[in-house]
Amino acid sequence: MTGSEQETGYQVRIIGTVRSPLKRLEDCPRQGEEDAPEAWLELDPACADGLDGIRAGSEVLLFTWLHLADRGVLQVHLHGDPQQPLSGVFATRSPARPNPVGMHRVTVLKVVKPARLHVAPLEVVDGTPVIDIKPVRHSRER
Amino acid sequence: MTGSEQETGYQVRIIGTVRSPLKRLEDCPRQGEEDAPEAWLELDPACADGLDGIRAGSEVLLFTWLHLADRGVLQVHLHGDPQQPLSGVFATRSPARPNPVGMHRVTVLKVVKPARLHVAPLEVVDGTPVIDIKPVRHSRER
Repeated sequence: MTGSEQETGYQVRIIGTVRSPLKRLEDCPRQGEEDAPEAWLELDPACADGLDGIRAGSEVLLFTWLHLADRGVLQVHLHGDPQQPLSGVFATRSPARPNPVGMHRVTVLKVVKPARLHVAPLEVVDGTPVIDIKPVRHSRER
Repeated sequence: MTGSEQETGYQVRIIGTVRSPLKRLEDCPRQGEEDAPEAWLELDPACADGLDGIRAGSEVLLFTWLHLADRGVLQVHLHGDPQQPLSGVFATRSPARPNPVGMHRVTVLKVVKPARLHVAPLEVVDGTPVIDIKPVRHSRER
């Protein structure tokens, strides 16, 4: 997209940071299902009111900004395997994409006031910015 | 969050625009399930390579930037009903939240080269920016 990419006036607000034992990208499993560890979300205390209603046991969709991803890539090999054909990034869950929004279904294990959440499983690297949390819907769209 | 909100160097890139018969916010149903119409995604032709692998019949998660939402709100009444108690925005699907990322599960009805997708159902207003598309996973996380 270089040359025609559209930067906007919309800025991402970081509402917190992932604290994880995964310290390097190469340590991270591809998906939360694959033995991803527990992690802490250290959220901005100014956001604490927004967490009202989230409890231990809640299942939530955690949205991160995969800050180490290459935003200029539009095609990737499936599963990162050069033997696989190239696919458009929008047909994959690759972190590489124009807006590297990560989506992770996690269970809240513990809530510590004012604004820390213990969650699992989470496959992203320590230091990844958190941008949103939404409840899981047990219906068609989730 | 006013005063302590953290703006970052991360800018959202608009990869396209929703074209919908829903011309006013008050016309929009709350969720895609509630009789939301078909819509067109007019994507940046520079992103066309990223769509490779998306076909008519594909179910995808469409991510939008709900540009009309109030980013300063941390608590809302459930279902927008003042009779309901206040809840933290992260425990709701309200568009109001620090980063107004909309997530919509839609079916691709038609793909028109280089970069237009006809989809349904979609409950957002005409002109809403598109920021990402991911495949639906038929497993735990989606």
